[in-house]
Amino acid sequence: MRLGRVIGNVWATRKEEGLQGLKLLIIQPVDAYGKAVRTHFVAADRIGAGKGDHVLVTSGGSSRFIDKDNPILIDAVIIGIIDSTEVERGEIDGTSNWND
Amino acid sequence: MRLGRVIGNVWATRKEEGLQGLKLLIIQPVDAYGKAVRTHFVAADRIGAGKGDHVLVTSGGSSRFIDKDNPILIDAVIIGIIDSTEVERGEIDGTSNWND
Amino acid sequence: MRLGRVIGNVWATRKEEGLQGLKLLIIQPVDAYGKAVRTHFVAADRIGAGKGDHVLVTSGGSSRFIDKDNPILIDAVIIGIIDSTEVERGEIDGTSNWND
Amino acid sequence: MRLGRVIGNVWATRKEEGLQGLKLLIIQPVDAYGKAVRTHFVAADRIGAGKGDHVLVTSGGSSRFIDKDNPILIDAVIIGIIDSTEVERGEIDGTSNWND
Amino acid sequence: MRLGRVIGNVWATRKEEGLQGLKLLIIQPVDAYGKAVRTHFVAADRIGAGKGDHVLVTSGGSSRFIDKDNPILIDAVIIGIIDSTEVERGEIDGTSNWND
Repeated sequence: MRLGRVIGNVWATRKEEGLQGLKLLIIQPVDAYGKAVRTHFVAADRIGAGKGDHVLVTSGGSSRFIDKDNPILIDAVIIGIIDSTEVERGEIDGTSNWND
Repeated sequence: MRLGRVIGNVWATRKEEGLQGLKLLIIQPVDAYGKAVRTHFVAADRIGAGKGDHVLVTSGGSSRFIDKDNPILIDAVIIGIIDSTEVERGEIDGTSNWND
Repeated sequence: MRLGRVIGNVWATRKEEGLQGLKLLIIQPVDAYGKAVRTHFVAADRIGAGKGDHVLVTSGGSSRFIDKDNPILIDAVIIGIIDSTEVERGEIDGTSNWND
Repeated sequence: MRLGRVIGNVWATRKEEGLQGLKLLIIQPVDAYGKAVRTHFVAADRIGAGKGDHVLVTSGGSSRFIDKDNPILIDAVIIGIIDSTEVERGEIDGTSNWND
Repeated sequence: MRLGRVIGNVWATRKEEGLQGLKLLIIQPVDAYGKAVRTHFVAADRIGAGKGDHVLVTSGGSSRFIDKDNPILIDAVIIGIIDSTEVERGEIDGTSNWND
């Protein structure tokens, strides 16, 4: 899963079938220390993520099955809102609460 | 999903089965601010996107199922034409209407 | 789909089951203007592409199903031989016939 | 599969269905010599990997099937804890025990 | 498929189910001229590849089905040992026997 920060919303009236009502958020990928890496992408959200939240995103074919009986045309979905991480930073370990 | 801008068309007479009549558009990937990033790719379109439109593109195995009962040999499909985005830009939030 | 140019052939006697007789071509990925980008890869071909042709390539899990009833161990397949493209180039639009 | 080193943990209370109780580890991708490459990602772990371990990670749609009868929304899973590798280094071959 | 050269072995005692006895090789990706590109990865091998061999590797969800009735948790598999390639090099075409 990729680590990311929600930085915005995107709206599209004209879209493929099966995507009505799906919330679409713009994600800034970040590394384990919260630093921005690479370019933005868009992920579906069903768990109530909002701007500023640090999130876990599942990409690729797996994300298609957020409704098992009704696969839809997406390739990225937010699967968790991060409470905290514990990461070694060089020699020193650090704990941080990302969304407090 | 990737953010992109439609920059052209591509035509191929000789092709694999199941792709007859499918509109194929050339996409310039962009970031959340509309800036070009990375290299071009080609996506199928069924929702009427045209040159200059900002679009959302689903890639990978998910895109194969634009017709659930008849999966086809594609790996990218336009799933939405973007009306507008709302993205934080450093400290300041910005709203833009991409396709007006 | 990726844009590419066929630059060669590859032969392998010892291979996994199900790949006998499958033509394997070496592809140079190109951008919408035909400029080489990134590194070479190999794609299966069933539509008669040859060296110098500009082609469309489907990658990933989708390509496995070139024979729906008999999925095989590939991750890239040529799905079209490009006749022509029409791409905006900065302010000016350009039309080109890639394989003439 | 990618080679990686476990560098931390991530916790998320609010998450998608089917992910309760799944251990999520932060991975630093490494090359065959153990050198850090690219950016961090998160993988599910069911085999008891811990911080400092060198691991093999399966990514993409394959990882969804860690429970065959109950596919879940993940795109990376640790499939092995590396005991040792044997890699040529330029002209010289080297053997190393990564997790001793 | 990616082009690669086998540069080593990796051993893991503790691993996910279904991977017992599977040979795992470390691959150096190469371009069409045999030049190293990008970073190492690990692929399963069932066709007897060994160190120094140039190989074709299938990645992603396709590789999961090396045993159709018993999909396993891998994302890369060697599908062929390259005998020879024929690639244009600028204006000049070149033929090489990679594994002789």
